[in-house]
This record gives sequence, structure tokens and C-alpha cells, in this order.
Amino acid sequence: MKEIKHVVIIGAGFGGLQAVKKLAKDKFVRITLIDRSNHHLFQPLLYQVASAVLSPADIAIPIRSLMHKKKNVTVLMDTVTGIDKDSKEIILGDKRISYDYLILAAGAKTGYFGHNDWMKYTLGLKTLFDALRIRNRILKSFEKAENHPEMAKDLMRYIIIGGGPTGVELSGSLAELSHSIINDDFRNINTRKSDIILIEGGADLIPSFDRSLSVYAKKKLEKRNVRVMLNSKVIKIEDNKVFLKTQEGEKILTANIIIWAAGVEAVYLNNTFGLPVDRQNRLIVNSFCSFRDHPEIFAIGDSINFKDKDGKILPGVSSVAMQQGRYAATAIRELIHGKELKPFRYKDKGSMATVGRKDAVADIFGIKFTGFIGWIMWLGLHLFYQVGFKNKVSILLTWMWSYITFGASARLIQETPTKEELESMLYSLKK
Amino acid sequence: MKEIKHVVIIGAGFGGLQAVKKLAKDKFVRITLIDRSNHHLFQPLLYQVASAVLSPADIAIPIRSLMHKKKNVTVLMDTVTGIDKDSKEIILGDKRISYDYLILAAGAKTGYFGHNDWMKYTLGLKTLFDALRIRNRILKSFEKAENHPEMAKDLMRYIIIGGGPTGVELSGSLAELSHSIINDDFRNINTRKSDIILIEGGADLIPSFDRSLSVYAKKKLEKRNVRVMLNSKVIKIEDNKVFLKTQEGEKILTANIIIWAAGVEAVYLNNTFGLPVDRQNRLIVNSFCSFRDHPEIFAIGDSINFKDKDGKILPGVSSVAMQQGRYAATAIRELIHGKELKPFRYKDKGSMATVGRKDAVADIFGIKFTGFIGWIMWLGLHLFYQVGFKNKVSILLTWMWSYITFGASARLIQETPTKEELESMLYSLKK
Repeated sequence: MKEIKHVVIIGAGFGGLQAVKKLAKDKFVRITLIDRSNHHLFQPLLYQVASAVLSPADIAIPIRSLMHKKKNVTVLMDTVTGIDKDSKEIILGDKRISYDYLILAAGAKTGYFGHNDWMKYTLGLKTLFDALRIRNRILKSFEKAENHPEMAKDLMRYIIIGGGPTGVELSGSLAELSHSIINDDFRNINTRKSDIILIEGGADLIPSFDRSLSVYAKKKLEKRNVRVMLNSKVIKIEDNKVFLKTQEGEKILTANIIIWAAGVEAVYLNNTFGLPVDRQNRLIVNSFCSFRDHPEIFAIGDSINFKDKDGKILPGVSSVAMQQGRYAATAIRELIHGKELKPFRYKDKGSMATVGRKDAVADIFGIKFTGFIGWIMWLGLHLFYQVGFKNKVSILLTWMWSYITFGASARLIQETPTKEELESMLYSLKK
Repeated sequence: MKEIKHVVIIGAGFGGLQAVKKLAKDKFVRITLIDRSNHHLFQPLLYQVASAVLSPADIAIPIRSLMHKKKNVTVLMDTVTGIDKDSKEIILGDKRISYDYLILAAGAKTGYFGHNDWMKYTLGLKTLFDALRIRNRILKSFEKAENHPEMAKDLMRYIIIGGGPTGVELSGSLAELSHSIINDDFRNINTRKSDIILIEGGADLIPSFDRSLSVYAKKKLEKRNVRVMLNSKVIKIEDNKVFLKTQEGEKILTANIIIWAAGVEAVYLNNTFGLPVDRQNRLIVNSFCSFRDHPEIFAIGDSINFKDKDGKILPGVSSVAMQQGRYAATAIRELIHGKELKPFRYKDKGSMATVGRKDAVADIFGIKFTGFIGWIMWLGLHLFYQVGFKNKVSILLTWMWSYITFGASARLIQETPTKEELESMLYSLKK
């Protein structure tokens, strides 16, 4: 009788979940899935939480509830502190878990290209916590402006740094929030006068897309009153200030809120494993998403540096992570059953981004879509990939509802803790 | 031509909103509604957020979106720091707003009967923040138990102090969470072995209800494995420890989480107004919900001490607040239009509380309902009173869905901020 092999998967993102799904079917496998948080996050829609369209529960689903029927899967909410590659053990604080195979899929975090001091003055957008912080800050800026209309102009100026999909989608969504949805809610200010500035260092927005789509996105954002600044490199960030190097020389912009959507890097832990990493902390893997000296360790998704056959590093997008997750699962099953591995090949099916309500750009198998048709494709594909069925229904209803009513349910400003509550929180943290 | 009068309303709870609704129809009135938070909270369902059945957006609705069609209403999200009764001005930090009439409706907060040191060891349940804290702590206790099953017994012991409606509903709801809904999600622990203890100082649960309903509630909670301890007075609370005086002598109970649902008191600010207050900081009003020397100031809801004709203080429930809100609005309109005021009379329509899924007790106009019929009445009345239409649909769908699937969408553990994030939060707080 064949021995049951233990596969440990670190990270329940798009990659990790695909790997579990495929591996759990093998009866010679048992799986431990470890994540720091208790939920899978649908990151492509995070900007909609930040712009108060969706609620956290719409884009996050508890990992346990996805796994509760898979009896060979154990979920642990815990923080990995290290790997002992020789004894094949995962270290979780004072606890160790041994593995036969390991899949590293811990993802990426906001990266500042070495300027970690900029973190203090900006808001990132990689976690639910980040999204809620942006939402709170934006909504509070309108509240403060309503109380002090003489300061409205300064309070309602926002800078988004980074013209990739996140920056484009977030600025489009914030423009809609301020320019249409909530303006009737206020008496003393005109939220349509919000000043949203999108800054991109290169010559094009969403540079990974076809140039015609980049141009379309820019035109549509500008129509929605977003100021798009191309060829503008950030050289310094201070409190409410961004210093730029542009083709016309240096410029200083001020804003109430500065959002950093310009870069990510792999989780810090990666460089403690004794495995090769690049400058962005990404694990450098071979063509099997693995390591020469450790063929039992796979690494996938945003946290790796995988070069395709043209020598280009694959981008940190969900479709890459999902394909690699399925690949790693297949590879492990082949290793267990003594078959030979084929290297990983990425099938690029295209990419897309929204630029507003009913408006998106999509590049699917080389065919370009814009406007409402692009948006319908974007909607369908995102709903299709959304994990829990309830979430699909809930998101669809929320969207339909907010279409009809410009709905308000997500425009909650979450209370910030009082001094007493903070003391009590600190007290229970210490325990 | 008649002069337009300015009515300032402090607090957008059940009382404040009813007052606005009635007053806004009068074209000789303009209204400023002030609240510390940006949302109206449906407090009767707060326990369902705490027990991971509903999400925050299901029971909170932005105040602005409720008011955006009422053009004579200005909403301010701000904190009142005082009242200048002589110049008829509300003080908001360095800003003053003059009023012709004032309605104080700032509500209540968790009260510890003078034992404020107990706050550190317990969790209250009056705000969304409170509810999310309870939810996070409960869900994390299961997570920790799954990682350390040898400690599961201690980790899964919870004490709820206070046998009023909040304590009864919360303990029933937590029993359902742990005894049925999520047990399949775990591999190493049996969440059905959770130990939920409900402590009441008096001889009956929900003492304001008819005794037959109290007995029914106790029986049903015990059937769901809640340990109900009556005649047990809390004499001291320490870290994870509750000291009780019972009929069999003193007892010490330990628990991972201690929830305080035993009392409320009016907001602290009340005793700075120079108006009469009782020991629980409640404003002592006359039979017009007003003050002899200040007939232009009304006070309503949980934050007042109003004696009915039998000399009994009206309870802090939504129906009292709503009737007083409508009364105060009518009274102000009568004062403006030179009519004579009738004193406030409370019409008691009954009360109800859930003891589990499909199970509630209700006492409506003296008729008693229990079980499924009681629950249907409870459901209907709560949905009926829920303010925003979207919320009604959303709550109904969420409930139906969680009925069919024992759904998971509310079982999110919200991330706690990292050290860096806390630093950045502190930084923006200081500004």
C-alpha cells in the first residue's frame, strides 16, 4: 500500500487555493494549508472596497468554509517563521510541522523600491485593512470639508502614484465616487470639485496593455476629471507632498491623501529560507517552479521570479498564480506517482482593467475590447473567478443595486478605537 | 412671513432619526443633525455581527444617504464638546453653532456601575467596533484551539455577564455558532464542546418580560448547551476571571473571553451641560422630555431619565426612543406655531428577544409568543424598522442564505494592524 504524503501549502491566495483544489482529489495526499489571515481575499476587487462600492465581506471568504468538505485538508491560521529544509519542517513559532512536499505561495506586499520611509506618508492597497484605511480617509476628508468648507479645496485633493491597473482602477473609481455618487449628500461643499491626480513614471498608463488601450484609458479617466501625469518620476515624498521629476523640470504637488500603487515586493520572509531571491525578494525558481537542490519545494505566484522562454519575468497577476498553483499540484502528484515532470508554461489569456462604471479595457487572446463590452467581460470574468457562490450572488446584487440607486451601504466610516479601547487591545495583544 | 427656526439634533440613533423625519416636513424649520460617526446603527442586531452572522454593512447605514433628499437637513460628522445654554450655541471644538431648539439624543454606552477597571478585562457590546472585537476574539479562540488542541477546553470557554435581552441573544447566537454552524470547519477540535456561561444577578433572565417567557428562554438556552447561572452577582473581575457571589457562596470562574452585557450609562458629556443628571449620567427630564428652565432643549432616548405616571423610569429601548423622537419633533413644531404642549406618554407595544435560530420570545400588547411564531414576529418587526431599503433586502437575503447554507461570509477575522501600520495610524491621528 502506498504511503500518504503530506503537502504543506503556505498562502491561501489564488495560487495556493488552486493547488489545494487539484491536490485534495489525490487520496495519497494529505494537505495542511497555512495562512496568516482566516480569509481568501479577492484582490482584484480591493479597489472597490477602497472606493466604498463593496464591503469587506463581498470580497473575502473564510478559508475554512472553502475547505470544510475536503477532509484531507487541515487549515491553520498561523504565521510561518521559518523553514528547516534539511529536516523538511515548517516552523510556526515554537511549533514544527514536517512535510514531504512544500508549496510556497505567500504572495506580495506593497513595495517602496527601498524608500521605506515613504510608507509613513502614503497608503498602500494590498490588504483589506489597507482598503478600509483608504475608504475611511477619503470619506473623512469629505466630512471634514463639509465642516470646514473654506478648507475643502485642499482637503479634497488626492494623489495616486502608479499608473498600473491598480492606480487606474482606483482613480477611476474615486472619480466616480466624488464626481457623482455622493455629491447630493453634502450641503456645504461640491464633491465634484475633488482633485484626483494619477502619477505615472513611464510614458503610458497600464503599460503591460496594448498602447491603444493605454490611450483609451487615459482619455476616459481625463473625461472623468482625473488629472493624469505621465513621465513623472517620484523622487521624494514628505507629509502631504510629492516631489516629481518631469520633462518640464521638478514639481512639488500637495495633497490630503497620497496613495501608493506603484510597486510590490515579495514577503520579507523569503530571504530567510536560504533559497535564491532577487532584489524584490522574489524566490528565483527553475522552469519547474522549484529549486535544483530542493525539488520537493515549489514556489508560485507573486512571490517568485519565473522567467518564461523569452527571458521575461512573468507578471504578478492572478492568472499566473492560478496556473502555477495547478501546475505545482500536478507536479507533486507526478513526483508521488513516479512520473516525469514537464516544465511550467504560462498561457497568457489576456488582461483587463476598469476605467469606470460600465467602462473597461480588455485584451483577450490579442483581441481588444473597450467601453461597455469590455466592462461586461470584466464583470463576467471576475464573477466567474470569485470563489464562494454566496459572494458571487452578493456582489452581483450589490452591483445591480448600486447601479439603480447609487447605493450607500459600503460608505461606512469604521470607528477608530478610543484611548481606552486601544489600551484594552494592547492588553489582549500582550497575552 | 414666519422666521425659519434652526433645530440642532445631537445623535442619529432611533430617537434622533424619528425627530428629523417628522421635523423636516415643516418648511419653517431647518435642521442640523450631528453625530460622531457617519452611520446610523441598528443596535438590536449588533449581537449578530458579534456572533458572525451579519456583516457591519448589514446593520449600519450612512446618515447622509438617509438625508440626501431632505434639503433642509445638514448632517455634520463631528463631536460635541459642550453647550452654551445662555447664547443657545452648540460647541464643536473651536466651532460654534447657534440653535433655536435643541434635541439631545446621544444615547448610551457600556456602563460598569463604577467599576471602570473591569473594562480592561471584558468586551462590551454597544458599537460596531465592539461587535467586531467580539467576533475577532471568538473566531481567533477557535483558530488558536485548532493549532493547540491541548488547550482547547480553556480557549473555548466564554462568559457573558448580564441576563437581559443582549446577554440572552448573544449567548444563544454564540451557542449556535459553536455548536452547529462551524464545527465541520475544524479538524483537531470539536467546537461543540465550547462552554458558554450566562451570568445573571437576579432570579430571572430577561426580567422585564413576563416570567413565563423568562423560564422559556432559560430552558431553550440550556437545551443549546448554554450554562445559565441565576442569582449570581459579579463582585470582582480580573484577567480571565470572574468572582461571583451565589446562594451557595463565592465562586470563581475562568474564561478565555468575558463579555459584559450587564449595564449601560448615558454618555459622559451629559454631566457637563449644567442640566440635572442621575447616577447613571442620564438627563432628568420633565414630562415634556424637556427642562423647566430650558423649554427649548429636549432630551430623548437612552440618555434620559423619564419617569412615567407610575414613577417607573422608562427602559432604554428603541421603541421608547422612537416615540420620544416623534414627540420632541411635534413639540417643537407646536412651540414654533404657538400651540400648547401635551406631556409625553409612552405606549408600550411589547418587547421581544431571540433565543436561537427560528426561536424567539415576544410579548406584544400582553400576548405571549414563543418559538417559531415568536421568531417570525421578531424577524418581521426588525426588518420593518430597519431603515434603508437596501439593508432590508440584504439582511433578508443574508439570513435566507445562511439558513440554507450555514453561510460563512460574516466569519471574517479582520486583520489587526502591524507595528508599521500602527505607527502610520498614530501619525495621521496627530495631524
